[in-house]
Amino acid sequence: MKRDLDALMEARGLDAFVVSGPIYGNPSLIYLLNGAAVTQGIVVKKRGEPPVFIHSPLERDEAAASGLPLVNIARYRFTEILRETGDRLKATVELYRRIFADLGVRGEVGFYGMADQGQAYLLLSALAEALPEIRVRGEYDGALLDVARATKDADEVAQIREVARRTAEVVEETMAFLRRHRVKDDTLLTDDGTPLTVGQVKGYIYQLLARQGLESPEGFIFAIGRDAGVPHSRGRPDDPIRLGQTIVYDLFPKLAKGYYFDLTRTFCLGYAPPEVEKVYQDVAECLDAVVAEVRVGVEARRLQQVACAFFARRGYPTVAEHPETEVGFTHLIGHGLGLAIHEEPVFTDVPSNIRTLQPGHVFTVEPGLYDPSSGYGVRLEDVLWIDETGEVHNLTPLPKELVVEM
Amino acid sequence: MKRDLDALMEARGLDAFVVSGPIYGNPSLIYLLNGAAVTQGIVVKKRGEPPVFIHSPLERDEAAASGLPLVNIARYRFTEILRETGDRLKATVELYRRIFADLGVRGEVGFYGMADQGQAYLLLSALAEALPEIRVRGEYDGALLDVARATKDADEVAQIREVARRTAEVVEETMAFLRRHRVKDDTLLTDDGTPLTVGQVKGYIYQLLARQGLESPEGFIFAIGRDAGVPHSRGRPDDPIRLGQTIVYDLFPKLAKGYYFDLTRTFCLGYAPPEVEKVYQDVAECLDAVVAEVRVGVEARRLQQVACAFFARRGYPTVAEHPETEVGFTHLIGHGLGLAIHEEPVFTDVPSNIRTLQPGHVFTVEPGLYDPSSGYGVRLEDVLWIDETGEVHNLTPLPKELVVEM
Repeated sequence: MKRDLDALMEARGLDAFVVSGPIYGNPSLIYLLNGAAVTQGIVVKKRGEPPVFIHSPLERDEAAASGLPLVNIARYRFTEILRETGDRLKATVELYRRIFADLGVRGEVGFYGMADQGQAYLLLSALAEALPEIRVRGEYDGALLDVARATKDADEVAQIREVARRTAEVVEETMAFLRRHRVKDDTLLTDDGTPLTVGQVKGYIYQLLARQGLESPEGFIFAIGRDAGVPHSRGRPDDPIRLGQTIVYDLFPKLAKGYYFDLTRTFCLGYAPPEVEKVYQDVAECLDAVVAEVRVGVEARRLQQVACAFFARRGYPTVAEHPETEVGFTHLIGHGLGLAIHEEPVFTDVPSNIRTLQPGHVFTVEPGLYDPSSGYGVRLEDVLWIDETGEVHNLTPLPKELVVEM
Repeated sequence: MKRDLDALMEARGLDAFVVSGPIYGNPSLIYLLNGAAVTQGIVVKKRGEPPVFIHSPLERDEAAASGLPLVNIARYRFTEILRETGDRLKATVELYRRIFADLGVRGEVGFYGMADQGQAYLLLSALAEALPEIRVRGEYDGALLDVARATKDADEVAQIREVARRTAEVVEETMAFLRRHRVKDDTLLTDDGTPLTVGQVKGYIYQLLARQGLESPEGFIFAIGRDAGVPHSRGRPDDPIRLGQTIVYDLFPKLAKGYYFDLTRTFCLGYAPPEVEKVYQDVAECLDAVVAEVRVGVEARRLQQVACAFFARRGYPTVAEHPETEVGFTHLIGHGLGLAIHEEPVFTDVPSNIRTLQPGHVFTVEPGLYDPSSGYGVRLEDVLWIDETGEVHNLTPLPKELVVEM
């Protein structure tokens, strides 16, 4: 949580940190700027002091919405520096020298936020060389901002609940849309008598998302039959919607400069083949078995182990025994969820993953079973939140049902 | 253009390059993957050979849509490496060692694509240390992928034209929406008799964008009166829509995993105050004056100089003489446009900016004049394309008119 930033800095021996870059695709910057509608920025935080937002003069109104102390970057006269040095890298080093001098930044300084990797390498190497008063620090795994973001406070959970509510409404409206179609020879038909296609359903879902004020910059999955058997297959636009086939519907929308939700339901229209019924039941029971393990202090990797052991006992291949399997349980059991779709905690089952579940964690649990050659895939995904007292809440306000009556 | 990649590599002395990261907010990766609907990836290109896409096993269907030679990353057994090394950074170094050995990558290797800056610094430093067969190279300014992306081929221009068409339709439908409202005391009223607000108009614009299949992940600007006087002010949701006030309407949507467009019109509903008429005329004439300078070989910075000189002659302050001015012409004349909103070419007026305009360049020209204390701002923005013969095309299919009759 944001209130932990100073303690996390102390644990890492950091005197200050910088988070910078474009706001787009940069969740740690969005986090520190409290969702302010700017396009870019540099945030500098000294331990024990509030973060300072160094913003573009063009965005001074939006910058104020961050609630942070502001510095207009025009103060540092970057264009003049660029004119004098004739080199953008040298000019950026000089910009940071001025910022650090102005704000009194010295000592161990962590750098976070998205940048071109080659540029980051050159800039941080140049800063390490040119600025003797600071030591440049990066973190590769379990980085400060990622750890802070992983535990959500009450306000963040309220925002996630709001995205959850709207996402569930989109799913329910999608189901109502599908049910409005008539059926001939097990195929849904549009008003003009042609088969309803995956592409048409996806177009309608985009409308529903917009009506809910949701963005879905990474798309979503609406895949039927064989495609449902490949976990991240998006679905082929020309496929007709047919009864009795598994449809994997995985939505991961977000609010503008805000939190994601992530929700998967698998269903069959009209009826389900017996083989799918069995698989669906196994996935649903696995989800319950994993959720039953969730409590403060449990190792994150334990959830992956529980899911793999559960499916192995029921005779399915899993990634635990067959890392390259494309049949059975082929992926991770879940991921942290927040301002990024995938964030801390991480559930990879390796000994070096010593993360434990903590109050404030929000994460998905999403067991799935796939068999593309048999033409099916089943995945169910709920989002859990561990509150400050350690109580576990399911944040997904939507039931699970395999068969959608037509 | 993509076909220039080998020549650009040769000019930089690169034997190979890597572009990696999440796809979200990572235009160089989107570029190389030809818009494939994956969430992440590593692309490795050796000089003289096609790029190779190292993809997640979960995304094997979408990866194929890239049209590139594929390698399933499962081949390199990352989880096993992670189990053995117990350290994600060391494991990632070993992953790259295996990839480079497998693909025969040696010598000078450029690294591009978005990553956490601290992680990039650690990873590239570790690769430089651990892999004697390669030399790690980054680029800070005018980087290979940025330069390649700056010149668009015919297929890319066709995609940009399609986004342009849809964006212009959104603007025209917005105007029609505004005109449908009745007016009382110079204020637009909704059906229930309350004033129409900026927030309501913005909600409607989001619907229009969705209907056109456009994403707008960075929002848009619809700002009236004083807010229009601050270039990037987004507009306050509760402000009523009134006649006779400048409205700056700046849209910058994109297709999913595709190209952006960028379009600004300024207008007044009903009538325009004489002061605004004069300013609008000056901005429109500046735009024409800048466009008249566009041809192959002209220095990019020249367009900024022309705009500043034009406005200075008409008595407005400009950033050329007053870098910190918030009145007059306060920003850059334009920016390259493509898979990112802001990309090459860059128009900053400093001697080190030796970029010249080239066939294939697509960029905005967007002069503006602002005076927030007088309650107005005017900006007009068109997109230009220089084709392979050097002919200049205006890609913005929308007229400019200050007054929208009610």
